[in-house]
Amino acid sequence: MTEPRIAARLYLAAELAPGARVDLEPGQAHHLRDVLRLKPGAALAAFNARDGEWLARVDALGRGRGRLAVESLRRAPEPEPDIWLVFAPVKRAPIDVLARTATELGCALLQPVITRHTRVARVNRARLTANVREAAEQCGRLSLPEVRAPRELGPLLADWPAERRLLLCAEAGPARPIGEVLAGFAADPAARAAPWAAMTGPEGGFAESELDALGKLPFVTLVGLGPRLLRPDTAALAALACWQAVLGDGGSRPAFRVSNPDPNSN
Amino acid sequence: MTEPRIAARLYLAAELAPGARVDLEPGQAHHLRDVLRLKPGAALAAFNARDGEWLARVDALGRGRGRLAVESLRRAPEPEPDIWLVFAPVKRAPIDVLARTATELGCALLQPVITRHTRVARVNRARLTANVREAAEQCGRLSLPEVRAPRELGPLLADWPAERRLLLCAEAGPARPIGEVLAGFAADPAARAAPWAAMTGPEGGFAESELDALGKLPFVTLVGLGPRLLRPDTAALAALACWQAVLGDGGSRPAFRVSNPDPNSN
Repeated sequence: MTEPRIAARLYLAAELAPGARVDLEPGQAHHLRDVLRLKPGAALAAFNARDGEWLARVDALGRGRGRLAVESLRRAPEPEPDIWLVFAPVKRAPIDVLARTATELGCALLQPVITRHTRVARVNRARLTANVREAAEQCGRLSLPEVRAPRELGPLLADWPAERRLLLCAEAGPARPIGEVLAGFAADPAARAAPWAAMTGPEGGFAESELDALGKLPFVTLVGLGPRLLRPDTAALAALACWQAVLGDGGSRPAFRVSNPDPNSN
Repeated sequence: MTEPRIAARLYLAAELAPGARVDLEPGQAHHLRDVLRLKPGAALAAFNARDGEWLARVDALGRGRGRLAVESLRRAPEPEPDIWLVFAPVKRAPIDVLARTATELGCALLQPVITRHTRVARVNRARLTANVREAAEQCGRLSLPEVRAPRELGPLLADWPAERRLLLCAEAGPARPIGEVLAGFAADPAARAAPWAAMTGPEGGFAESELDALGKLPFVTLVGLGPRLLRPDTAALAALACWQAVLGDGGSRPAFRVSNPDPNSN
């Protein structure tokens, strides 16, 4: 039994089960009808973290609305790495790329943080969520990273869940190399089982007082990313990539090849 | 003795030595005069891989021309990691980001490669070189990555320097996890001392025949980057970040804090 060619992969929050009929959002219906020009019967993949990924078909498709008929399970739900990205927001184009790339790198949650030297205080959560969703659809993950509202550093740390370890990317002051730190944690079963976060500062770096305070928190490990000064978004992606390779799901392989005609076309 | 505040960091190919007078390129003179509004006497850092990084001052500055007076060594030349990035070119905005980020991640050379499924065959080397240079100036490295002209995969591999190991990011077919592969090489003195390259395919991936042929070459190791399908630029950056953390200079710390007023303003 060969599977039909999948024309698109869609995140759907609704329950996915054999025989279910699921309404599309207006934007999804528009994309399927007017961009991909699909007709009823076209095969899609529909997914969410709770139900996994399902083969579905276009059941009805009109202007700005549509419905899928869910057929059979393609891929069962599975645990995913629990790593948050806490980042000082950057400007529009870089933050969009950051959100997309963090999603590809398996980030579970995006938490913007306002630090002393952060100059971008507003975050368009709707736009970031749209970026994250599109990236999740294209990279084959089952979950959608949550995009949180920005918070000040102080209150964020005051509420921090104590069991969640935090890799703090520190370009100034004392810090151990990320490779060495991660290799150490890889040999520690408690660290392997723990939830994690990676945190990066703004363009101007963390204030010295912020680094001092962060360095004293029991869940924080200061890490260095080498001799070059990385832009905040590069630092975030480097930290996520290294974490996934050592403590995350770097040992797994993709379940399917995505067959979207041109995932980067918009 | 406190060092004066450095207004900018400039790559200059000319010989940097005490007392040297070095002409600026028109674009550099324009940037210093009309964007940063510097006056004669303003302190700068001038660098290249051969001579290291030097304190210099604006000696003369006019419309589209100018000269620096080199004063004293800030940072001696030092060996840098020898890792190439071989990548199937992507579209304009992503390729610019890729060039900048690869520079920050310490890539020594950018080699575009045309594979079976590569759809972007032209590369604007002048624009990429400008991106690379600006990123080198901002991230504090001494060298400028070389940007090579695109080559077809076959001839590129036929000329490949046998001692240069190649990490091939393969999303399909058999491949070992990058974390495991790098940890293995870290324990092998010959691999640690070798020059390296990381290679990524185009949006559509490598053709099966390409992967088969690559997998048979003695200098190639196929690596996997986890279960998500990464865009080519994300895969390249993840591979570079992991390589630097384990086999590169991830153990070093930045020599200086860059003090460009706003490195992302253009």
